[in-house]
Amino acid sequence: MTRAPQVKREITAELISIGDELLIGQTINTNAGWIGEQLALIGVRVVLVRVIGDDRETILRALATAQADAVLITGGLGPTKDDITKHTLCEFFGTRLKRHTDIEERIAAFFNSIGREPLEVNLAQADLPESCTVVPNDRGTASGMWFNREGRVFVSMPGVPYEMKSMMEKHVLPELRRAFDPPAIVHRTILTTGLGESHLAERIAAWEDSLAADAIKLAYLPSPGLVKLRLSTYANNDPEGARDRVARKAEALYGLIPDLIFGEGEERLEQVVGRMLKARGQTLSLAESCTGGYVSHLVTGVPGSSAYFIGGVVSYANAVKMEELGIPSDMLELNGAVSQPVVESMALGVRNALKTDWSIALSGVAGPDGGTEEKPVGTVWIAVAGPAGVAAVKVYFPGSRDLVIKRSALAALNMLRKSLIMSS
Amino acid sequence: MTRAPQVKREITAELISIGDELLIGQTINTNAGWIGEQLALIGVRVVLVRVIGDDRETILRALATAQADAVLITGGLGPTKDDITKHTLCEFFGTRLKRHTDIEERIAAFFNSIGREPLEVNLAQADLPESCTVVPNDRGTASGMWFNREGRVFVSMPGVPYEMKSMMEKHVLPELRRAFDPPAIVHRTILTTGLGESHLAERIAAWEDSLAADAIKLAYLPSPGLVKLRLSTYANNDPEGARDRVARKAEALYGLIPDLIFGEGEERLEQVVGRMLKARGQTLSLAESCTGGYVSHLVTGVPGSSAYFIGGVVSYANAVKMEELGIPSDMLELNGAVSQPVVESMALGVRNALKTDWSIALSGVAGPDGGTEEKPVGTVWIAVAGPAGVAAVKVYFPGSRDLVIKRSALAALNMLRKSLIMSS
Repeated sequence: MTRAPQVKREITAELISIGDELLIGQTINTNAGWIGEQLALIGVRVVLVRVIGDDRETILRALATAQADAVLITGGLGPTKDDITKHTLCEFFGTRLKRHTDIEERIAAFFNSIGREPLEVNLAQADLPESCTVVPNDRGTASGMWFNREGRVFVSMPGVPYEMKSMMEKHVLPELRRAFDPPAIVHRTILTTGLGESHLAERIAAWEDSLAADAIKLAYLPSPGLVKLRLSTYANNDPEGARDRVARKAEALYGLIPDLIFGEGEERLEQVVGRMLKARGQTLSLAESCTGGYVSHLVTGVPGSSAYFIGGVVSYANAVKMEELGIPSDMLELNGAVSQPVVESMALGVRNALKTDWSIALSGVAGPDGGTEEKPVGTVWIAVAGPAGVAAVKVYFPGSRDLVIKRSALAALNMLRKSLIMSS
Repeated sequence: MTRAPQVKREITAELISIGDELLIGQTINTNAGWIGEQLALIGVRVVLVRVIGDDRETILRALATAQADAVLITGGLGPTKDDITKHTLCEFFGTRLKRHTDIEERIAAFFNSIGREPLEVNLAQADLPESCTVVPNDRGTASGMWFNREGRVFVSMPGVPYEMKSMMEKHVLPELRRAFDPPAIVHRTILTTGLGESHLAERIAAWEDSLAADAIKLAYLPSPGLVKLRLSTYANNDPEGARDRVARKAEALYGLIPDLIFGEGEERLEQVVGRMLKARGQTLSLAESCTGGYVSHLVTGVPGSSAYFIGGVVSYANAVKMEELGIPSDMLELNGAVSQPVVESMALGVRNALKTDWSIALSGVAGPDGGTEEKPVGTVWIAVAGPAGVAAVKVYFPGSRDLVIKRSALAALNMLRKSLIMSS
C-alpha cells in the first residue's frame, strides 16, 4: 500500500537570550546566531530572537508572549544573585525548586576535583524546578531545564557558549527532533578559500542559476579568509533522492572550482592539512614574524597535532631571524625583513633547524604602523619549504591588524595544502 | 534661587534588527550590542532587542508592540526586493513614499564616481516616507528615517554596520539626547583575573552589600579566565558627585583585592603587561609547549608590541626543547616535559637564547589525550624568568583543549604582571 506524500507543517522556534550584559553590548550575543544555524539544519525555523535583561517581569512577559513550537532560553543560570531565570521559570510554570541530590553530588565532586570546597551558592545550582526534565550539563554546574506545555516546549540553558553548545548537541537538538519530527532537510557545506564572496559568486553564477531546477537553495557564509557554500533542499519522503540531487550539484562545483575547495562541513583548514601530513607520516615546522604565533596556534588547536607538528620560531625581532633561523644580516639589510629572499630563508632555516619535512614562513606588515609606499600595511610574504625545495608568494590583505594576521595565516595554510597535493 | 534636585525619569529604548540572515546565524548581530553600548553611555537603557525576518506582518507586529521611548530599527533598507522595511514603515505610519530629488542626485553622483550607471532600483532608494525626517547616510545609499509619534521616536537605519555607526554617531545619538535629555550614567569597569565568579563574589560580598547605600549597581561580566566588575550609578544633577561616589568604592575594591585587579575598561592583560615592559625599556621572550603559540599570538596582537617582544619558541616536540632551549635529555626523561625543572629550564633557555630581560614558559597537558592520573588533562606548569631568577607554579584548568590553552595563557601573563610589580 502506498501513501500519498505528506508535506509536514513547519516547526517554528523563538529564542530568548537573558542578560543585562547583552543589552548594553558588554557581551556580543553569539548564542542566538549559533542556535539559529543549528535549528535551521534540523528543519526548525527561528522566527523571533529576543534579548532581555535579568528582570523578573520582563522574563515573565517574554515567556507569556512566546508563540512558537519551541522556545529556547539562554542565560541567567549562574550562581550569583542577579541570575533569576530559574526562579522566574518556577513562577511561570507554577512549580517550585527541589534539591537534586545526584546533581549536588556532581557539583561537589567537580569542585573537589579542582581542589576547592563548593560554596552553598554552588550547591544551590542543584535546586531545580519540580515539573521540569533536567538537561545535563557536561561542561559546567548549571543544569538545563525542559518544560512541556500544551504541545509546546520551553528549554532553559546556560548562557556560557561552550556549555550551551554541548547541551544543545547532546540533548536538546536530538530531543527536539524526537518531539516535533520536523521536515527533514538535506544539506552539504562546501568550504572554499582564496576568493572573496562577490568574485566567487561571479565565477559560479551559471552553476548557481542551475540549482533552482533541482529545488536546491544556496547560501554564502563568508568569514575572514573563507567562504562556506551551503546547499540545502527538503527531503520530504525521499531523503536518498534529495541527497543524490545535492551530490550531483556538489560534484559539478568541485569540477568548477577545484582550486578553491579545501573541505566540507565543519572541517578547518588546519585539520585538512594535519590529516594530509599524518597520512604521509610527514612533519611540519613554522617560522612566523607578522602572524606572531597565530599559525602555530591554529595548527596546535587540532587535537593530536603533536603527531606531525614539531615546533616553531616566532622571529619577531631581526636578531631572532638571524640567530635562530640563520638569516644573514646583509640579506636583511639589503631586502628588508618583508621580502622574498628573507621569507624563503626563514622557511629553509626552520625546516633545517627542526628537521621537518615541511615548513611555512611568514613575514609581513600587520600594521597599524610600519607600512611604506612600497610595502603598505597588509603586505605579507609567505614561503613553503618541502622535500622539493622552497617557493614564496606575496599577498596583500588590506584591513585591521587582526584581519591581516587571520587572512595571511589561512593563505599560508592553503599554500601548504596545495604544495602537499602537488608533491603527492 | 536654588532648585530642588530633580530625578529624571529613565529613558528606555528597544532595538529591532530586521534580516532573515540574522535568524539563521548567517550573520552575527553585532549591531544590537554596539547600539546598546552607545545608548548606555548617554543614559538610555535598552530594555528589549528583537531580531525578526524580512516579513511585512512580523515587522508591523514588532512596531505595534514596541513600548519604549525610542525604537531603533536596523536592516531591510537595501535595494533588493526582499528589503521591505521602508514600505512597511509607510503602512505603519499611514504615509506614502515621495522621491527626494536631492538624494536621487547624490545616489547618481555616487555611482558615477565609481564608474557605473545607477539602476532604477538604486535611484528608488531616494523614495522616502513623506512624514519622516530623513537621516543622511554619509557612507552609503540607504537613508535613515526618523518618525515622531506621541512623544516617542522611531528611527530606521541600514543594517550595514559602518553605515549605521556613522549615522548613529553623527545624527541619531545627538538627536536622541536633544529629544529626551536622558539622565547621565557614570560607570567604571574594573578587570580581574585569578578567581572565578562565585569565589570572587564571596570575597567581595561585604563590599558589594555596601554599594546599595550609594545607589551604585554592580555587574559581574565573566569570560574565560577573567571577571569584569562594572560599577554604575545615575549622575542626576551631580555628575561630579556621582563620579566621586564610584571612585571611592573602586578605591575600596583596589584595597580589597589588589592581587586580582589588572586593569580597567577595555584594556587587555597583554596590553597591561606590554605597557609595563615598554615603560621600563625591558624585553620579553616566550617558550610555549601546550599553548602552542597562543601566548605569543596575544602578545603580538597589541599594536607596537615589537618594541618589547623579541620572539619565541614553540617547543612542541621534546627534540625542540632540547635543541632550541637547551633542556638536558635526562631532565626530560626523569621528570617528564610537564614538570617544574623542565618549565624553569625552558624559561631560562629562551631568555638566554633571545637575550631578553623577561621570559615566560609553559608546559602542560592541553588534552583531550595525554592525561595521566598524576598529570590529568588541564595540568599546566608556568615559569617566569627575570633579572632576579626564575619561579614556577602549577595550575590546573579542567575543560576543553581550547579552554586549557586560553586560561593558562592568561594565568601566564598575569604571573609576569605580578613578577613585574614585585621587581619594581
